[in-house]
Amino acid sequence: MLSNKYNLSDQLLDFLVAKKVKTVFLLTGGAIAFAIDAFSRNKKINFICVQHEQAAAMMADAYSRVKDNFAATMSTSGPGATNLITGIACSYFDSIPNIHITGQVNIHEQKGIMPGTNNSRQIGFQETDIVSISSPLTKKSIMLKSEKNFPQLLENLFKISQDGRQGPVLLDIPMNFQRLSVKKFKFKKNNNFNRKINSNLNRKIIKIFSLINKSSRPIIITGGGVRYSNSVNELNKLIDVFKIPVVSTWSGIDTIDYNNPYYVGHIGVYGSRAGNFAIQNSDLVISLGSRLDTRVTGGRPETFARNSKVVMVDIDKGELEKRRGLTPYLEVKEDISIFIKEVLKTKSKFNKRLIFDKWNEYCQSLKNKYPTFQKNFSESTKFVNPYFLCHELSQLTSANEIIIPDDGAHLTWFMQSYKNKLGQRIFSAYGNSPMGYSFPASIGASIALNKKRVVCIDGDGSFQINIQELQTVVNEKLPIKIFILNNNGYGIIKQFQNLYLDNRLLATGKGVSIPNYKKIADAYNIKYLEIKNDKQVKTQIKKSFTHRGACIVNVMIHPNQKIIPKLTFGSPIEDLSPKINRRDFKKYMQIDTVKSDKNVVESN
Amino acid sequence: MLSNKYNLSDQLLDFLVAKKVKTVFLLTGGAIAFAIDAFSRNKKINFICVQHEQAAAMMADAYSRVKDNFAATMSTSGPGATNLITGIACSYFDSIPNIHITGQVNIHEQKGIMPGTNNSRQIGFQETDIVSISSPLTKKSIMLKSEKNFPQLLENLFKISQDGRQGPVLLDIPMNFQRLSVKKFKFKKNNNFNRKINSNLNRKIIKIFSLINKSSRPIIITGGGVRYSNSVNELNKLIDVFKIPVVSTWSGIDTIDYNNPYYVGHIGVYGSRAGNFAIQNSDLVISLGSRLDTRVTGGRPETFARNSKVVMVDIDKGELEKRRGLTPYLEVKEDISIFIKEVLKTKSKFNKRLIFDKWNEYCQSLKNKYPTFQKNFSESTKFVNPYFLCHELSQLTSANEIIIPDDGAHLTWFMQSYKNKLGQRIFSAYGNSPMGYSFPASIGASIALNKKRVVCIDGDGSFQINIQELQTVVNEKLPIKIFILNNNGYGIIKQFQNLYLDNRLLATGKGVSIPNYKKIADAYNIKYLEIKNDKQVKTQIKKSFTHRGACIVNVMIHPNQKIIPKLTFGSPIEDLSPKINRRDFKKYMQIDTVKSDKNVVESN
Repeated sequence: MLSNKYNLSDQLLDFLVAKKVKTVFLLTGGAIAFAIDAFSRNKKINFICVQHEQAAAMMADAYSRVKDNFAATMSTSGPGATNLITGIACSYFDSIPNIHITGQVNIHEQKGIMPGTNNSRQIGFQETDIVSISSPLTKKSIMLKSEKNFPQLLENLFKISQDGRQGPVLLDIPMNFQRLSVKKFKFKKNNNFNRKINSNLNRKIIKIFSLINKSSRPIIITGGGVRYSNSVNELNKLIDVFKIPVVSTWSGIDTIDYNNPYYVGHIGVYGSRAGNFAIQNSDLVISLGSRLDTRVTGGRPETFARNSKVVMVDIDKGELEKRRGLTPYLEVKEDISIFIKEVLKTKSKFNKRLIFDKWNEYCQSLKNKYPTFQKNFSESTKFVNPYFLCHELSQLTSANEIIIPDDGAHLTWFMQSYKNKLGQRIFSAYGNSPMGYSFPASIGASIALNKKRVVCIDGDGSFQINIQELQTVVNEKLPIKIFILNNNGYGIIKQFQNLYLDNRLLATGKGVSIPNYKKIADAYNIKYLEIKNDKQVKTQIKKSFTHRGACIVNVMIHPNQKIIPKLTFGSPIEDLSPKINRRDFKKYMQIDTVKSDKNVVESN
Repeated sequence: MLSNKYNLSDQLLDFLVAKKVKTVFLLTGGAIAFAIDAFSRNKKINFICVQHEQAAAMMADAYSRVKDNFAATMSTSGPGATNLITGIACSYFDSIPNIHITGQVNIHEQKGIMPGTNNSRQIGFQETDIVSISSPLTKKSIMLKSEKNFPQLLENLFKISQDGRQGPVLLDIPMNFQRLSVKKFKFKKNNNFNRKINSNLNRKIIKIFSLINKSSRPIIITGGGVRYSNSVNELNKLIDVFKIPVVSTWSGIDTIDYNNPYYVGHIGVYGSRAGNFAIQNSDLVISLGSRLDTRVTGGRPETFARNSKVVMVDIDKGELEKRRGLTPYLEVKEDISIFIKEVLKTKSKFNKRLIFDKWNEYCQSLKNKYPTFQKNFSESTKFVNPYFLCHELSQLTSANEIIIPDDGAHLTWFMQSYKNKLGQRIFSAYGNSPMGYSFPASIGASIALNKKRVVCIDGDGSFQINIQELQTVVNEKLPIKIFILNNNGYGIIKQFQNLYLDNRLLATGKGVSIPNYKKIADAYNIKYLEIKNDKQVKTQIKKSFTHRGACIVNVMIHPNQKIIPKLTFGSPIEDLSPKINRRDFKKYMQIDTVKSDKNVVESN
């Protein structure tokens, strides 16, 4: 029983090493202790102890994003496994590949194995059906039922997580298997799949060229798929060659430099006025790896790019098939990397020069007319204007900075005013948008990149969700700069209540309280800084960056600071609130206008 | 849109009021904001803002246990909902009725509603299929699809949660319904169901009398079902009348006074030697509301009460049907309250006096011979002996104290040495056993009982899981006494590694770090006390109780403090380790003995 023989858990670690996982995020427990013990026999992989499994899943999500496109967690059965769920959902909705390894009770202890145990709620200690619970949120969840072909199962799970639209997988391993002696296995180290090019791709690309030729106002949308397919360089080549305007979704925001002469802005419900006007005035949209969610199109997708032919390139058939008012003119089911490469190949065969100077000028004039930061955004000079803060952060962050905003109001402020440099990484758990992602994600990203500095943009409410991981930051000595945009409550919901509920601030302004973050920082012996007004912004950001270790920067925001601009439900995305004067509106909205439909309310 | 008209959310609150829910545990978000707004129009119900939804679910679990057998949470769609899962699992495995109300995106935004949206991962913002995810952990999870018959749906969900074996239900309400105008509805205020008595109950009770008459060593097991069916008084009447020995499971521990002359001790893998010897020497077991889990029977159920006829009374057919080596002689599917009442009725018709003096003497001699606390348990005088601490707590707690231990080593130490008084409430989330239950549960219990003092027994690792709720304690001014049994790592896993993994302390002793709890207490302005050695135990407990508000009591436990006694896997439960001398063993084990089977390892 005390044997040190090579066992199935050792095989598991060898698999992770072959897939370039250097660090596993875990929290121990009885049903996973044998698996974790294998780390004592493998020098090529290590682990980080987290304080709560939900954080482990979020760390693995970020680790996969910034490193080699794979990551792993380990946790025990029952609550250890269910604690992962919100983190797994982040990876699922944002197409991030990773594997969650959960311990399970011995096979012989499980419900349904011994006679008459089918209808019990639970048989083994902490036995919980994590496979069923997690299945709606993974590409595959499976329990190991036999040690035979275990390596093949692992290779297969890896392939599932990587192939097509990426995502998480979960493997539940009963204790009895974890300690079984097995033979060594040589896992594949070449992790690239030979993706087949769809046979009709070339025909479709020629069609796209013909559409571009006929177009006078073409535009490219760069979405998350550009990043997930590792096509940032290809995208930028494409723009260089085609010289047509580009807008981004939030997921695509770090695929292009803000100062790229063809970049207009980000689009959507909380988009830039410039980006939204541009897309709404286009006559041809080439959408690369965006699912064209209603946060991008507005609540009435039929009003989105409504005078445009939309070419939608996506690896996920499910996203191409959606018919919610927006019907793509041409659907291309393809990996974005392959798609762009083929487009560039084909382009070189064409001699015709594409010239969209007027259209580019119009788009750039929008970018100048509606800058991301305006002095008058702030309601009070006694607080920090979050738009100013993020604007200044753009100036002070490094060329390869990693910046992870959380969600809600501060994510929106950040996206609306931060000017990214190509080479920086900026991401959040956009699809799932849980409170509390950015902090553990910052830890995961920092660990992935040899304890690199990471800028975490958080809210005073959101930070609470994973506050326990301050101990991990301290234990691992990670230089994470935690900016808490502190507006004393859940800002985005306050704005919602202001708009739709007569400003009754139940459970946002009323009933909610926020800890004293200075004292929290002291408790963990973490450097604390405060930014009380706009004047202090620059020096305090610099101070936080100069300090060697972790830092909590408490940024005092007006409790009623609004998100500006923001789409009012029912309006098309060119007409953000507060509404601009109609003369300017008509000037920039060169196609038809539509009326608002005020009957719809969405969450935020 | 800004209407204040009576709507479906008002109806929802009226339902909760009728079911005696006074406080809802919630965290807001866009998809639940309309529902929460209804609190502004209802003075009979209020809410507590939590910092993390997982805590809300655990608070509701405890609220239901100590108050009127029902409770509610509210949270938003997506992460708000998935964050509940671990807490819901607590209620499911421990049969606690409550309702979780989650907001969901508008019906028209949902996956599968608009054409072609079936195969997308997500359509609405933060849309997540919480019904499928939670279904394995609730008695019923359902999404509201129409406002028609909403009151009937609510009544039905209430009935499902209460009827038969109790448990949680989940109701997912799309935003569009939350603000729909509806008519007032008068919900039932009489929440007692007329439970039908099973027709064969009397025949079975007569059979049981006949078994008792033939028995010379009968014993009663009191389990969680005694508490959940509200039968504590009935049980104690039963004991008064029958005068036969009683042992308890952990779930049943607070259904009988430790000093009751017929009480022997708790049983199981970490049971008392006295209780285990008693059950193993019995010839008739009457098990009331215990599922006779392997933590009770040991890993080899065929060795449990092996010379006994086992009468198993349980409301859940699924528990009666299990055949894992232990086959009940007689199965009674009945509510425990009804069962005991009928037994007492029948008894009064019998004249025969039952006398088990010799058997009672034997059982009480066991209780004296193997007391719950022995001086030599501690390995070092430089630390606090946790057994001594819990023993002293028994002396100093009040007659109606509420004490909520968490899990792992400190739960075991507590159970093994605390001597409860009838009237006290003692519980943990036994079946799910997550780290981090006891602290939010203490909040929920305190809120339920007008901010009553609650003693929370936690571990240094476990407390991390819901540490963010310190803010809730401060905001609500709750006098919760948090005893952190600090052994610097996950003690129960350390003991497992010591036994089975050559004492390689990966992810328990190594790689794990613990925050400075003094500084944490300071950060929240919470009174901090420390207990460094046994001498300080009494005065510091008293100090914590005298202090008016919340208190963190950091109890320094030896890092290698063991759980004593503990079953070694494969042994029958009378033979706990460390093994007692064989002379005593033979003296007390009056029936056959069995050999150990060392081939099995369970999680802990």
